[in-house]
Amino acid sequence: MEISSMNDTICAVSTPAGVGGIAVVRVSGPEAIEVCNSIWRGKSLLETPGNIARVGSLLDTSGEALDEAVALVFRAPRSFTGEDTVELSVHGSRWIQRETIASLVKHGARIAEPGEFTRRAFASGRLDLAQAEAVADMIAASSRASARVALNQMRGSISDKLDELRKKLVNLASLLELELDFGEEDVEFASREKLAEATGEITEEIRRLLTSFRSGAAIKDGIPVAIVGATNAGKSSLLNALTDDDRAIVSDIHGTTRDTIEETLEIGDYLFRLIDTAGLRETSDKIEQMGIERSRMAMSRAQIVLYVIDPTNFTELDLSALPQDADVLRIINKSDIYHDHAIDGIHISAKTGEGIESLRSILADIAARKTNEGEDTVLITNARHAAALEAALGSAETLLNGLQTALPSDLLAQDLRETLHHLSTITGKITTGEILNNIFQNFCIGK
Amino acid sequence: MEISSMNDTICAVSTPAGVGGIAVVRVSGPEAIEVCNSIWRGKSLLETPGNIARVGSLLDTSGEALDEAVALVFRAPRSFTGEDTVELSVHGSRWIQRETIASLVKHGARIAEPGEFTRRAFASGRLDLAQAEAVADMIAASSRASARVALNQMRGSISDKLDELRKKLVNLASLLELELDFGEEDVEFASREKLAEATGEITEEIRRLLTSFRSGAAIKDGIPVAIVGATNAGKSSLLNALTDDDRAIVSDIHGTTRDTIEETLEIGDYLFRLIDTAGLRETSDKIEQMGIERSRMAMSRAQIVLYVIDPTNFTELDLSALPQDADVLRIINKSDIYHDHAIDGIHISAKTGEGIESLRSILADIAARKTNEGEDTVLITNARHAAALEAALGSAETLLNGLQTALPSDLLAQDLRETLHHLSTITGKITTGEILNNIFQNFCIGK
Repeated sequence: MEISSMNDTICAVSTPAGVGGIAVVRVSGPEAIEVCNSIWRGKSLLETPGNIARVGSLLDTSGEALDEAVALVFRAPRSFTGEDTVELSVHGSRWIQRETIASLVKHGARIAEPGEFTRRAFASGRLDLAQAEAVADMIAASSRASARVALNQMRGSISDKLDELRKKLVNLASLLELELDFGEEDVEFASREKLAEATGEITEEIRRLLTSFRSGAAIKDGIPVAIVGATNAGKSSLLNALTDDDRAIVSDIHGTTRDTIEETLEIGDYLFRLIDTAGLRETSDKIEQMGIERSRMAMSRAQIVLYVIDPTNFTELDLSALPQDADVLRIINKSDIYHDHAIDGIHISAKTGEGIESLRSILADIAARKTNEGEDTVLITNARHAAALEAALGSAETLLNGLQTALPSDLLAQDLRETLHHLSTITGKITTGEILNNIFQNFCIGK
Repeated sequence: MEISSMNDTICAVSTPAGVGGIAVVRVSGPEAIEVCNSIWRGKSLLETPGNIARVGSLLDTSGEALDEAVALVFRAPRSFTGEDTVELSVHGSRWIQRETIASLVKHGARIAEPGEFTRRAFASGRLDLAQAEAVADMIAASSRASARVALNQMRGSISDKLDELRKKLVNLASLLELELDFGEEDVEFASREKLAEATGEITEEIRRLLTSFRSGAAIKDGIPVAIVGATNAGKSSLLNALTDDDRAIVSDIHGTTRDTIEETLEIGDYLFRLIDTAGLRETSDKIEQMGIERSRMAMSRAQIVLYVIDPTNFTELDLSALPQDADVLRIINKSDIYHDHAIDGIHISAKTGEGIESLRSILADIAARKTNEGEDTVLITNARHAAALEAALGSAETLLNGLQTALPSDLLAQDLRETLHHLSTITGKITTGEILNNIFQNFCIGK
């Protein structure tokens, strides 16, 4: 997308694809109100103040009545995009949606690129880049916890935290400038200690943010849970018992499990990704191989392991290939036929459903504990942010090292600028068209 | 649905199911504004006048921030339902949609039945029944012509026409009353002639409306086109060539072709239903039998016949089983290898696509001609209306016959009341809960 095309008027259906009671067509740009008014019969939209809805009818491409509609006018800068915007509520027929867009295009609007409304909100300064990315996370949110994190980020939690860090770094920079000005005087060494201390704090804060990515990703994408156990211990039955109540919800969730041998499961506020090792078999099918590769990756990141044991036929498995910091739950299956609790663990019956509810509570408790940093502190959920923080951490550590080894100020200033630069890419204070294209092309149309 | 439940507050997602940029949750009823305000943080909705939108945030079921949203308030009676209504625009995540509904229900709203918003618009007198049914047709509209007919009906075209007929019938009734009052005087026979004349006119108008159902149904559901011809004449290739450009659009159309051997095809403003007789083979598969039975029915109602001829191997077929009033187009296939135009007809090549565009134009022209009554006059598209008109026509004809055979006034009055009754069921002036349930249960949720 060319930057020059940011000044025209765009339109798109912003509601989900398909047929429904109503659909909303959003129009934004300098000519938004004029374009809509030219296909509008009713009180003039040109004279309609912001935040006011009018009832009227829309004209089709041949200038005849298309539909009865509601037009809600927003005036710049008091709109999502920061531009003049009109939201047209039409009857949700596919044909009417299509024809409304065609009619708007005929009168001067252009069909919006994916994410272009949000990109304009960024361009007009209504949202910074981290907030804009949180809009997409909000739309993809599939659990209470993920929606809550996205909402916090949309409201600027990351941006505020980064501004704080940036201020500290700018302060450091001015102290380094001072040192450059005064040269080799005594003041230097005192400052250096203070500088190192301040840099150490900043480095720690960046590291903590980066560490939160593990929790953040688990909340956003689901907490990876590996199901392991001997053949016929009941892994698949456990998976079925756990997901059974939620199958409707699971199949509701957008494009999650199709190409992997994973199931997603919502318990309480959290989303879990269950990976059944029974599925990790040898295969020559290319597509299946790709799915299995993804599952192996997920397995290596498992935060919870459900170790399914058949107490009537039990030998201990070697779990050393699994992440050492994962919580391992020993699930003693077949409690319907095996009543002896000699083997320690959580006794369930995948067959009768006995103990499944309490296992679900245990999983919810572990999820809450693993992600409880989410309550008060800032969580990183975005891989791009994590990569930028990783780069910033590298520069900050180099800076800290330089301060401790008495490198000259001009070299230190370079490391400091690099740290600042990497942090600034997160909120988009420093960015490129290419980065923006990458981010917004993954948005849905109409947002 | 109980009539007593028409006084509570209902809510539903009114936009199509799925994930999108935004979704609209509609809340309607006496407590709509209070319920929404209790999960709202921002300028109070209680003090927000009608047709004004507020920006604020929504609370989830646990009272914490759920989403940033726009609340558009409509005040009774100036709303679609005629009740207080709030439309909440939220981010179109499945989770946020679900939780918004849950939060509204927690604060006193009830999840709406299918079509319940429109049913309330009917109950409050905002729409009559024919208009309410047109709302569903509007949402299902899949071509310009069908949307246009639905819009006219939504705006009251049928209702106005029926009101006109009703007035004439009521006028007749008062003349019959007059006759009853004055008994066997001379005035009777003069009145009878006039009455018969007026009744004849009314009967004709009802018959014309009923006849328009054929065009109306063709516009609404697609014009049935039978493809016939000898084996290997190229019927399926023609079907493919005709539908090829539109396959994306065809597969876009909601639940049309799944269980029959029909394809739908949009050309210009019209929708066509193509029935390939090649598919009408013997089968023992129950499901397939049902599809074939439906296709045979469609065939017997074909308004256009595409008679596909292989000029290199031609014997005339017997088309007497097809409707005699259908337009028959002789399609001479294989124009790529057969250049002699000795056989009269439309020369095409299903293989190279030669002549397909002009065949499409011919089909569009026939459709326009067959349905052109749609432009200025009232078209019946709804089977329920057609059935009521059929019943009304029966009573009107009995009345006319009675007038001509000098039956006593009280018997005539009975026929007249019946005619009025049948017409009144169309707009819902006379109706039952059962009829209403049947109508509205086929609506989508949220409308």
